[in-house]
Amino acid sequence: MDQGIKVLDCTIRDGGLLNNHRFEKNFVRKLFEAVSSAGVDYIELGYRNSITQFPPDEYGPFKHCNDNELRDITNGVVSRARVAVMMDVGRCDIKEIKPVHESPIDMIRVATYIEDVAKAVEMSCDLAVKGYEVSLNLMAISRDRGPELDRALERIRIESAAQVVYIVDSFGALRPGATAELVGRFRSGLPGKIIGFHGHNNQQLALANSLEAIRYGATFVDGTVFGMGRAAGNCPLELLLGHMEQGDYDLDPLVDLIEKEVIPLRESMAWGYSLPYALTGLLNRHPRTAGEILRDAPRDKHCRFFDYLRENLDR
Amino acid sequence: MDQGIKVLDCTIRDGGLLNNHRFEKNFVRKLFEAVSSAGVDYIELGYRNSITQFPPDEYGPFKHCNDNELRDITNGVVSRARVAVMMDVGRCDIKEIKPVHESPIDMIRVATYIEDVAKAVEMSCDLAVKGYEVSLNLMAISRDRGPELDRALERIRIESAAQVVYIVDSFGALRPGATAELVGRFRSGLPGKIIGFHGHNNQQLALANSLEAIRYGATFVDGTVFGMGRAAGNCPLELLLGHMEQGDYDLDPLVDLIEKEVIPLRESMAWGYSLPYALTGLLNRHPRTAGEILRDAPRDKHCRFFDYLRENLDR
Repeated sequence: MDQGIKVLDCTIRDGGLLNNHRFEKNFVRKLFEAVSSAGVDYIELGYRNSITQFPPDEYGPFKHCNDNELRDITNGVVSRARVAVMMDVGRCDIKEIKPVHESPIDMIRVATYIEDVAKAVEMSCDLAVKGYEVSLNLMAISRDRGPELDRALERIRIESAAQVVYIVDSFGALRPGATAELVGRFRSGLPGKIIGFHGHNNQQLALANSLEAIRYGATFVDGTVFGMGRAAGNCPLELLLGHMEQGDYDLDPLVDLIEKEVIPLRESMAWGYSLPYALTGLLNRHPRTAGEILRDAPRDKHCRFFDYLRENLDR
Repeated sequence: MDQGIKVLDCTIRDGGLLNNHRFEKNFVRKLFEAVSSAGVDYIELGYRNSITQFPPDEYGPFKHCNDNELRDITNGVVSRARVAVMMDVGRCDIKEIKPVHESPIDMIRVATYIEDVAKAVEMSCDLAVKGYEVSLNLMAISRDRGPELDRALERIRIESAAQVVYIVDSFGALRPGATAELVGRFRSGLPGKIIGFHGHNNQQLALANSLEAIRYGATFVDGTVFGMGRAAGNCPLELLLGHMEQGDYDLDPLVDLIEKEVIPLRESMAWGYSLPYALTGLLNRHPRTAGEILRDAPRDKHCRFFDYLRENLDR
């Protein structure tokens, strides 16, 4: 990997959290074509998680991303993008992963919470041995940024073969200043590693945080088409590309894709700015907190929800 | 005015650009009550523009904000918020403005493009003589930031009685770095003046820019409830207050207002992230450019729109 900024599209992987990864293959193929044409460097096509833990009658193919399903998407598409999948620590089986030369996958991102970082480090080494580019993605970083983060970084520095380590703002709680501070901490704790940033848009700060991360030395950033993603969504890829000062990117294929394929999806998959997720972001809570309340209460009971959050505030 | 950060709500004034300021008085009163209860410092209730230029059969009462209409909103409401209105240079009649002690208005914001700054400066002096707090709001600043801006700031410094001068990112085109640079330029060009920032959310940067403006020394910032405002909307007031490190603010009345009064309005008044406005923001064009295209073309013809914008790119 060179030292320029790499942009990774994770529309299917993060957006799939809205529909249990039950996308039509035809849609995913169109997305892969358009995002490739836009010149995006990496495209993450889903999770490579366990079929036992995520049974196919409940979850679609992009929760498992077996090699043949991936080839159905990528075969025949002219693309210089590298193909990525994500594996959740404790929810996947690494033995299923073939060596890279037998696989349609180029990069595997290992997603972990701080408490499971030892397992993630072990996975990262196994995957690197198999020849993959490996990223370690530290989720919920806005919550777990005390001394436990220093210990995790130390372990990663010493033991992990991952080339890339991501700051993942799962709660959409980070502010640009905190993002800059974390990038500095990752850079000084992980010499030689590439630092990545994955934002969420609860406070409409995903783009601003991504730009701030880049300014402070992160060189891998994530976007999703039209911001599609869990809860308030992610950094809109079209905005992120519009802000890249280098790189040969083209917005037109994305504009076309958004118009024809993505806007229609919004009717069944809600994402974007919403008050409950703005509040979980402000309060540094997992968006699931909103989900739990919203399942039990009508969508407009924000007041009760905010009371609940404040009563349960732990920071 | 003390030296703390002042937050101004301009929901009715900027949101009114979506509906020709035809709000129900009952709604505006509820908003005034809720935003006052939230502890917001200033509330802008509309434009004080000319009835001749904006005839009442086309425009609602909050385009004109005559004193009696304003009193219908504010009378009887317990509020420590100061009441503001905006006057557009060339679209208003300053002779109609009574001395401040005969008026329900505390602050008048004079909105001007750079080319009309001489008229705005004159207005600012007349209004200050009448006893008002006065703000000079320089619109479309992302377009007009060459030497013409230096000349305008020089004139304001020497001749204007406005206490506050606003950077207005009408196109939603500014990035945090450019915002910081502008705040620095305003501060050094306008010693003794208070610097304000008004963002638009085309690129989802309104909050990030507002926070960056504060970081670099702006002490007056604008928000609107749930981001309601022209095109992509403004900085959501609830997020802005959530980020204020000082000030006695309370989100609950806003949460209640959003739930009961503002979310229902979205059915008839569209605002928020949209591709055409994202593109006008990225390209540093007035959102009206999107409006003109969208009037003539179906809403989903983004491709043609983007082609048009690029062909007409002037920066």
